[in-house]
Amino acid sequence: MSVMQQATSISSSGSGFLGQNTFFNTRYSSSTKELSIKVKTKNSGICKCVAATPPPPPPPNEKQQIAYKTNVSRNGNMAKLQAGYLFPEIARRRAAHMLKYPDANVIRLGIGDTTEPIPEFITSAMAKRAHELSTLEGYSGYGAEQGEKQLRAKIASTYYGGLGIEENDIFVSDGAKCDISRLQLLFGSNVTMAVQDPSYPAYVDSSVIMGQTGQFQTDVEKYGNIEYMRCTPENGFFPDLSKVSRTDVIFFCSPNNPTGSAATREQLTRLVQFAKKNGSIIVYDSAYGMYMTDDNPRSIFEIPGAKEVALETSSFSKYAGFTGVRLGWTVIPKELLFSDGFPVAKDFSRIVCTAFNGASNIAQAGGLACLTPEGLKAMREVVGFYQENTQIIVDTFKSLGFNVYGGTNAPYVWVHFPGQSSWDVFSEILEKTHIVTTPGSGFGPGGEGFIRVSAFGHRDDVLEAAKRFKQLYK
Amino acid sequence: MSVMQQATSISSSGSGFLGQNTFFNTRYSSSTKELSIKVKTKNSGICKCVAATPPPPPPPNEKQQIAYKTNVSRNGNMAKLQAGYLFPEIARRRAAHMLKYPDANVIRLGIGDTTEPIPEFITSAMAKRAHELSTLEGYSGYGAEQGEKQLRAKIASTYYGGLGIEENDIFVSDGAKCDISRLQLLFGSNVTMAVQDPSYPAYVDSSVIMGQTGQFQTDVEKYGNIEYMRCTPENGFFPDLSKVSRTDVIFFCSPNNPTGSAATREQLTRLVQFAKKNGSIIVYDSAYGMYMTDDNPRSIFEIPGAKEVALETSSFSKYAGFTGVRLGWTVIPKELLFSDGFPVAKDFSRIVCTAFNGASNIAQAGGLACLTPEGLKAMREVVGFYQENTQIIVDTFKSLGFNVYGGTNAPYVWVHFPGQSSWDVFSEILEKTHIVTTPGSGFGPGGEGFIRVSAFGHRDDVLEAAKRFKQLYK
Repeated sequence: MSVMQQATSISSSGSGFLGQNTFFNTRYSSSTKELSIKVKTKNSGICKCVAATPPPPPPPNEKQQIAYKTNVSRNGNMAKLQAGYLFPEIARRRAAHMLKYPDANVIRLGIGDTTEPIPEFITSAMAKRAHELSTLEGYSGYGAEQGEKQLRAKIASTYYGGLGIEENDIFVSDGAKCDISRLQLLFGSNVTMAVQDPSYPAYVDSSVIMGQTGQFQTDVEKYGNIEYMRCTPENGFFPDLSKVSRTDVIFFCSPNNPTGSAATREQLTRLVQFAKKNGSIIVYDSAYGMYMTDDNPRSIFEIPGAKEVALETSSFSKYAGFTGVRLGWTVIPKELLFSDGFPVAKDFSRIVCTAFNGASNIAQAGGLACLTPEGLKAMREVVGFYQENTQIIVDTFKSLGFNVYGGTNAPYVWVHFPGQSSWDVFSEILEKTHIVTTPGSGFGPGGEGFIRVSAFGHRDDVLEAAKRFKQLYK
Repeated sequence: MSVMQQATSISSSGSGFLGQNTFFNTRYSSSTKELSIKVKTKNSGICKCVAATPPPPPPPNEKQQIAYKTNVSRNGNMAKLQAGYLFPEIARRRAAHMLKYPDANVIRLGIGDTTEPIPEFITSAMAKRAHELSTLEGYSGYGAEQGEKQLRAKIASTYYGGLGIEENDIFVSDGAKCDISRLQLLFGSNVTMAVQDPSYPAYVDSSVIMGQTGQFQTDVEKYGNIEYMRCTPENGFFPDLSKVSRTDVIFFCSPNNPTGSAATREQLTRLVQFAKKNGSIIVYDSAYGMYMTDDNPRSIFEIPGAKEVALETSSFSKYAGFTGVRLGWTVIPKELLFSDGFPVAKDFSRIVCTAFNGASNIAQAGGLACLTPEGLKAMREVVGFYQENTQIIVDTFKSLGFNVYGGTNAPYVWVHFPGQSSWDVFSEILEKTHIVTTPGSGFGPGGEGFIRVSAFGHRDDVLEAAKRFKQLYK
């Protein structure tokens, strides 16, 4: 390789650091294998950038050098995790399938990823905010880590008005999944937790990473030290609390991902009483609240006494198609106290100030637009569209004679395949219909024998999927 | 309050959950203090929303009820933290000062918050991306948690070209501060860490929160179990490695926040050798790399052997004014292995898949624009502007006879006030000149006797600040 060629390739490297009006003088040392570039810049004199060229690969018959290892032990909690996070696993299988069938029209009803464009009213607000960042009057740097005041106030009044939740109880975030892990950081490794079984995988996985759990027990497919609250058709997907041991933290999601079930006011009242009796903290995930059609609470704070035992997390992801934009929130009432009386919200505020730097200001502008009357109307249309998809899927499986759950209050349909391995059913569906779903056991042992079909998709894809399911299971 | 009035206020509450074509029938029960609204919607029949009105406050002479406490112990690590995170503390004092002097023109040279508008080339790209999210072809939902492929590739080639760093070694994030905590989550509570003293507070605070440290020792102002590597004018702000005990992780920031110093190639070579000898992992913070004017490495990966002992984190915050937009990255070479040979990058990938959901797609579009030739030029102009500010501040303090450090390779000026308490100097400056700075001891005991003056500000503010400093210290 000529020196000039190397100079060209190296000069483009690290060019992000170089200033204007630069002049190059290159020298290559074959002994040290270093290409040395003396760079003269207009302002700062000689500025030398040395890029070490990687050593040439050893000849094929030479023994491979043993890789250097640091002396830092791998985090034992990471080692407990059984596999990759569920949805990248699904994505891997999908990708492998697409390699196998490059011409197949693969329909994705697996991960709950929104597909429909964001209403213009909302994206225009974000574009406007982006443009404003180029103006003196409109530019803003660091925002409050808890979120922009106006947005916090609007979330409080829109979703929690009349429930005694105030602006400063709201913590704006880049999404519920991220908040779950920050909440785990808050709680620390010495708390015990309970989850519904099946449940959204981030609760269990973040608990393992935080060191709250024991090893994975392959016979029962559960991590030690987690209380799994079985939710089945038999118990109406609400756990038998008389059989649940006390834990410090109880994760509860309603409308539920993955089963699509929604807890009634009576059930949630019992849950709050259970938490109060045990002095536990409920982490209530209401990310699908706007999908509720039945007469059930949308927020845990509709239940008397909940403010003393619960915090709630939610998201714009599935309402406004913000899965890529990244915006959500967590509500922590002032009344929620640790055993020593210290307010949970105070520690969470410290967490977001240290581990986070606020949601993107552009995303927050989008959130504000979402919460105007026009934005709310637009979000309801988005939700309505996916609700119609859900109905198509429900009708399809019902017409085929399956026992079908969920779908009424959430964009997820929970289809029973009794006696079958859900990964096998997942694989068969993928292989024979080119439809990606999610195997129920990916959500916990309580999901075995079920398949979750998500309703996020273009209408024609959902209709096509319905046809293919009818063909497969006729 | 009339029933209708209450109906209006309650109906606006939780309205985010209500559908179109809703009809209200309200009833107020004075015994249960519940306002019950029967809502008939077009699709779903009667849908009842009950908002519990908060109980009236007790009469003044009634004993206050004892607040309910859960039985969840507060995280002992949170309790170790001595105060709020540093910059919100500064902000509190600033706010108090502004209440005291409502007419004062307070100039903020405290937190390093960018002030100048983002170049239009970059915000236009973000606005374009926002608009595209409203189109079928342009909409995207969940992105890869590690970042968009194109952006990862561009970061790799722009900043690490020729250094053997590839696209998939790059993890795009919502900023370096957020990455620091995700890295701590990765490392877990059983690692020991070393920091420069003084240092950016997020390293120590995240370590405390993760449970890696002992209690705070007020006599020495240090947390137990952290190795503080003293950096002073006497040692050229590079620690005497012969006096540093082995730790698993070494945080190193260059160009340095807060001292503004930059490590030389020779020093970094010794650091890498030190890490290799000890089997440690360097977490290299290069967020100010583009401010380097001297002939020093911008990236740790310019040092031979670094890929086996280091990872690097950086950010668009101080290059493109993205402090509110939120975009950064972390580089983890494939060669970086835990003691059992497990690749660090693999665990970090699992962390970002579980605890994170990707940086905002709009911010990532901005990042891509930043890394075009035009964008790089624009960023250099932004950096150049703040560098000019820095020079004004350096000249000011030098002309007043102070010993001044930093400023050449970073937008921070580290001014020595020997024998004085930095919080006292901070307070005096604030009180007498209405300028916010940052007390050096906020960055660790090694910062005592120093004040950090940040160079992020409008030019006229910086010039005015210079005048006021000259007045105060003439």
